Amino acid sequence: MNEFAMIRRYFTRPARRARLGVGDDAAVLVPTPGTELLVSTDLLVAGRHFFADVDPAALGHKTLAVNLSDIAAMGGEPVWAVLGAALPTLDEAWIAAFCDGLFALAERTGVDIVGGDTTCGPLTLSVTIGGEVPAGQAIRRDGARPGDEIWVSGQLGLAAAALAHLSGEARLSAPLLAECRKRLEWPEPRIGLGMALRGIASAMLDISDGFAGDLGHILERSAVGATVDIDALPTDNRLERAIWRDAIAAGGDDYELCFTAPPAQAAAVRAAAARAGVDVTRVGVIDAAPGLRLLDAQQRPVHLKRNGFDHFA
Amino acid sequence: MNEFAMIRRYFTRPARRARLGVGDDAAVLVPTPGTELLVSTDLLVAGRHFFADVDPAALGHKTLAVNLSDIAAMGGEPVWAVLGAALPTLDEAWIAAFCDGLFALAERTGVDIVGGDTTCGPLTLSVTIGGEVPAGQAIRRDGARPGDEIWVSGQLGLAAAALAHLSGEARLSAPLLAECRKRLEWPEPRIGLGMALRGIASAMLDISDGFAGDLGHILERSAVGATVDIDALPTDNRLERAIWRDAIAAGGDDYELCFTAPPAQAAAVRAAAARAGVDVTRVGVIDAAPGLRLLDAQQRPVHLKRNGFDHFA
Repeated sequence: MNEFAMIRRYFTRPARRARLGVGDDAAVLVPTPGTELLVSTDLLVAGRHFFADVDPAALGHKTLAVNLSDIAAMGGEPVWAVLGAALPTLDEAWIAAFCDGLFALAERTGVDIVGGDTTCGPLTLSVTIGGEVPAGQAIRRDGARPGDEIWVSGQLGLAAAALAHLSGEARLSAPLLAECRKRLEWPEPRIGLGMALRGIASAMLDISDGFAGDLGHILERSAVGATVDIDALPTDNRLERAIWRDAIAAGGDDYELCFTAPPAQAAAVRAAAARAGVDVTRVGVIDAAPGLRLLDAQQRPVHLKRNGFDHFA
Repeated sequence: MNEFAMIRRYFTRPARRARLGVGDDAAVLVPTPGTELLVSTDLLVAGRHFFADVDPAALGHKTLAVNLSDIAAMGGEPVWAVLGAALPTLDEAWIAAFCDGLFALAERTGVDIVGGDTTCGPLTLSVTIGGEVPAGQAIRRDGARPGDEIWVSGQLGLAAAALAHLSGEARLSAPLLAECRKRLEWPEPRIGLGMALRGIASAMLDISDGFAGDLGHILERSAVGATVDIDALPTDNRLERAIWRDAIAAGGDDYELCFTAPPAQAAAVRAAAARAGVDVTRVGVIDAAPGLRLLDAQQRPVHLKRNGFDHFA
């Protein structure tokens, strides 16, 4: 199998919405009238973002899922994606499994893989994703206002707990590990919830580098502060908070949505979450005073060992 | 300097056309009414697509240029790009020079860098580019018809000659090497020519993997064949054809346009090229019979050592 055969066999599927997909210099897409275009990109490097020996089907899923999560975080509907892949060798079984994971999620979420680029090199994956949102309705990071409530979808800290176990830093029971690994390796982008929060959420992002650091981006872009009840952060009951507090609040790889909304929208938030079939939890409030104040259930200040994530630190 | 400071200092510039650029989960762009969206992506790996010690300003230029060339090859106008960069270290001087080359070309061609992703890893660069074309006017690979003439812009083989010299496989005189290196390291995407050929060219692509192999993609997608006068392929007079024939016909890294047009459009092709300020040369003709026939000036068949490029071969 050579490069062109690989592209034909594994990476070329009929486009459903694109006018022209894989096989030309560029894909051709027809914008939906009245929408704006959302574009986001992520680069995943073996040994840094994933273990080189990870299940390739899970890797295919996650490579797309983390990008879908960015479109969800804008309240957008994902439409297309392009894939760049540097592969050490043309391992056909690996590529077939990777594509199984990638295309299963693409098909389920209505995304056309409309182009890409493959080359030989250290295992690196790059996805750029495009989505659409009704004009003016993108949910940005800069719209949080003092008094807004802070919400989080799903559960936090499970992926970080799995990573700690797999790195030998902690030990989870087998059933809990299975659940945590599922969250680490097969994250579920919150597309339906993101779209349902249009016109309701005042600011939103997805939690990829840890709740506290990512919330910090909303605070910075919105020029506000926040007070958060760290013990209210949703997680799995089997993760003991005393041990896993840092993983829950700052662990990363959660791919849940963090958003703000005025208190008057609380019922609308809950209705949107019910429609999307995702749990949401109110965890704090936006303040006028800058800075992020983390308090425990007894209102005592909590300091995290880590706050956000710097890939070069 | 940490990752966030680097992004702020070097990669964040005011967006001119985007509604929202770097700094959120996704960029927000407003499609021009009546246009279709073009999307293309390229992945460049150190040691494979470029020497790891290449001038970082040239690398910044080329990383964007090869993507602009894909939009040019569709007859499109480039509008936005996103950049993924895996960097071994945060070398501030290197990053500053890379950005000088990248943004100089972006600004000159009207492209907003609207987002990206940086991480630590083996030096790898990924650009996805977006462009616009009036609805239905994208120039695809599948429109060549028997009788159409085959045209090439600029000169071929110079980049391949530079690469042969730098790899120690050949020796060029200093002035010729300077010219050839310029073509290898600072390719000029043919955006103006591509746009000028809308409604004139029947099929088009850019020559990145070598003329013969790339023309083969037009033949395959259009289900036609071609006869080409290999000695008519445009190159620098100082490159002796007997020695450099393979580099000219199949060397790669040219980033010139190869296109087809009915003979009745020959004057329109020349007028479009004159408007764009780029030379074009007629090099062959599309046949109904499949296959690519390369003939020399004496009408003798020519066989190349290499035909196209397989990154995994």
